[in-house]
Amino acid sequence: MIYQKEIRLPSLQRGFHLITPYIEKELDALPEQGILHMFIKHTSAGLAINENADPSVQHDLDVIFNHLVPENRTEYRHTTEGPDDMPAHGKSVLTGPSLIIPITGGRLNLGTWQGIYLCEFRNHGGRRKVVLTVQGE
Amino acid sequence: MIYQKEIRLPSLQRGFHLITPYIEKELDALPEQGILHMFIKHTSAGLAINENADPSVQHDLDVIFNHLVPENRTEYRHTTEGPDDMPAHGKSVLTGPSLIIPITGGRLNLGTWQGIYLCEFRNHGGRRKVVLTVQGE
Amino acid sequence: MIYQKEIRLPSLQRGFHLITPYIEKELDALPEQGILHMFIKHTSAGLAINENADPSVQHDLDVIFNHLVPENRTEYRHTTEGPDDMPAHGKSVLTGPSLIIPITGGRLNLGTWQGIYLCEFRNHGGRRKVVLTVQGE
Repeated sequence: MIYQKEIRLPSLQRGFHLITPYIEKELDALPEQGILHMFIKHTSAGLAINENADPSVQHDLDVIFNHLVPENRTEYRHTTEGPDDMPAHGKSVLTGPSLIIPITGGRLNLGTWQGIYLCEFRNHGGRRKVVLTVQGE
Repeated sequence: MIYQKEIRLPSLQRGFHLITPYIEKELDALPEQGILHMFIKHTSAGLAINENADPSVQHDLDVIFNHLVPENRTEYRHTTEGPDDMPAHGKSVLTGPSLIIPITGGRLNLGTWQGIYLCEFRNHGGRRKVVLTVQGE
Repeated sequence: MIYQKEIRLPSLQRGFHLITPYIEKELDALPEQGILHMFIKHTSAGLAINENADPSVQHDLDVIFNHLVPENRTEYRHTTEGPDDMPAHGKSVLTGPSLIIPITGGRLNLGTWQGIYLCEFRNHGGRRKVVLTVQGE
């Protein structure tokens, strides 16, 4: 079976956000075994898997990514959309636009401490579109 | 259905290159719903999704990646193939070797501003091999 | 066909480790054409593809990742599990938790120099769980 759906996430502020409950709510009955493919249709936000318990991890990931790709480098040419724009493109290449998550026994087979993150790299990113594709049997 | 094909990209210079038209040309009729898997068979180049409109994004991504993994660190041991080689390995771990792109209505379901990038991290990388696998129905 | 299995890797020290033979040993007969999905069920380790020949690449990737996400930043708040913990979360977002590898002619279709890496970012990570899902025909 294959099942596909395009959703829009709520508008979230710049930073790393746990969206596991939101994604699970959007999914219909899942196969016994399979894969959930997630794909974000944007170039200045990303998807990631990380710690679902302590919110300070989300804060610290923001610190780490701001160090990795600083704003206002004099070498940047793509600057007309604001100082957060080009760094957002760079950060989204680092996280990537997609996730694959195994489905086992009709559920997402995440580890105990794993959650799904929206990585919002723009100051005002708006509602992000994500395509969910489920394959399995 | 499943469909698989190994292609060789043209030889491209060091940097980030839009290859969406090239990939679309290589694909036969796509399923109504499915996934395109892309996998590059190299360890010093990568694949990514990013902005398809302003070429200055490609320039700035090159700037960002050269800052992330500088050449000529005294700590590097893998140096016999030139100063661009080990940084290319590091950068390719950051981008990753693969992409998954949803297929919807017989077309790649990319966002308005999204294009497929070859990330060529070597000075003279040559023609890169990519395996395309389409699954769907 | 779809085939799924959860395995535990041996306990490996902090760093980048080639695990291709270990993964191949765990896989049953593979389809003629398909995809192997690998997913690590942890938030402080990752999976990657890189050079399978010269072990100095593994050393240098460790150097590169330690520069990318340094320990002991005063801005970090998630510090109770030790100085290696928060950087490990950051590094695992950079590598990602998953791989897709094409299967062709009943074998993993890796490039000549490509191997599968466990990226162990904790000082004492223990035995890591990985879900293998094979799809194909």
